[in-house]
Amino acid sequence: VTAVPIVEYWFDFASTYSYLATARIEAAARAAGVVVEWKPFLLGPIFQRQGWNDSPFNLYPAKGKYMWRDLERSCARSSLPFRRPSVFPRNSVRAARMAMVGVDDGWVALFTQAVFHANFAEDRDIASAEVLVALLEGIGLSGREILARAESPELKPRLRQQTERAEMLGIFGAPSFVVAGELFWGNERLDQAIEWARSGASPR
Amino acid sequence: VTAVPIVEYWFDFASTYSYLATARIEAAARAAGVVVEWKPFLLGPIFQRQGWNDSPFNLYPAKGKYMWRDLERSCARSSLPFRRPSVFPRNSVRAARMAMVGVDDGWVALFTQAVFHANFAEDRDIASAEVLVALLEGIGLSGREILARAESPELKPRLRQQTERAEMLGIFGAPSFVVAGELFWGNERLDQAIEWARSGASPR
Repeated sequence: VTAVPIVEYWFDFASTYSYLATARIEAAARAAGVVVEWKPFLLGPIFQRQGWNDSPFNLYPAKGKYMWRDLERSCARSSLPFRRPSVFPRNSVRAARMAMVGVDDGWVALFTQAVFHANFAEDRDIASAEVLVALLEGIGLSGREILARAESPELKPRLRQQTERAEMLGIFGAPSFVVAGELFWGNERLDQAIEWARSGASPR
Repeated sequence: VTAVPIVEYWFDFASTYSYLATARIEAAARAAGVVVEWKPFLLGPIFQRQGWNDSPFNLYPAKGKYMWRDLERSCARSSLPFRRPSVFPRNSVRAARMAMVGVDDGWVALFTQAVFHANFAEDRDIASAEVLVALLEGIGLSGREILARAESPELKPRLRQQTERAEMLGIFGAPSFVVAGELFWGNERLDQAIEWARSGASPR
């Protein structure tokens, strides 16, 4: 029995560097024969337990100033459109709940790419239900129906549990990649994570 | 007139990822026809102004646990020996002052490589004058004489000024690379920094 190698992709819709990873992960994984498992979660509660009530990029101005410039350069290198969001970080709870529905139904990749593009290339308010419904409709889905499922009582605890799972895995930032329990953090580690999955390297 | 392209390399001897950058920067720059200007500085005062009285890798355990595992993997990938230091971070003030002398005299690269190797491959106490003198002697230098120069009243303000300069440049971590005012942070950005220097890309 040969198991298909899997990379778990842990992301938060407010995370700047997750925009870069989201844009390339499916193509990079496919080229390596690796399957992506999309894992939306919320960084907010994890940051809060570290004593942060805001993004570290806002709490530490030098770090934040650098990040925006670096992101601009990185997008240019990847030929990705970029426009600095006028609000940062945007509330990502509703989008993350919709993405959970997308995992169930198989359209999570397309939806996630659309939301990151809206946030970081078009400066659209991805916290807004109207914007998210429009993005869903734009990829041919039933926006209102999905919104209702995302706001259902069944869905909310699932996202909370997924965030708790992220913390148990040692995740402290996004994007993160997990391969058989081995953690990789940051867009720069995507290729290593895929290589780890393909080579079947064991944790230690 | 063709100016030689320059990459400023800003490092702190206690910085884990500076071990990786130090091991490869001279060869990478030389291959690209770029000159390295070695800039020892102290992260401690910069961290303190951000409200941290210790390394963030100690203050935020999840981040620290990840870093040590990632560093181990990264060293293995680069075929660099690695042994986790029994003390972290080690006081790097004396080594940084010696490195300033090394910049004046032209042996900073060799000395810096030796100190990082001692700290991260051999778990030696690089805060100790005896250890540093032995490392200097090991590369054929007059250890005692250099120790005296490093502890002279002229040297101390120079390191302080260099650290203030780092902060003015927007530096908040190490390794950092500066090319004509453009900041790059982290071992992963070394190649981009060298490329930036070589292509003469302007800041904006």
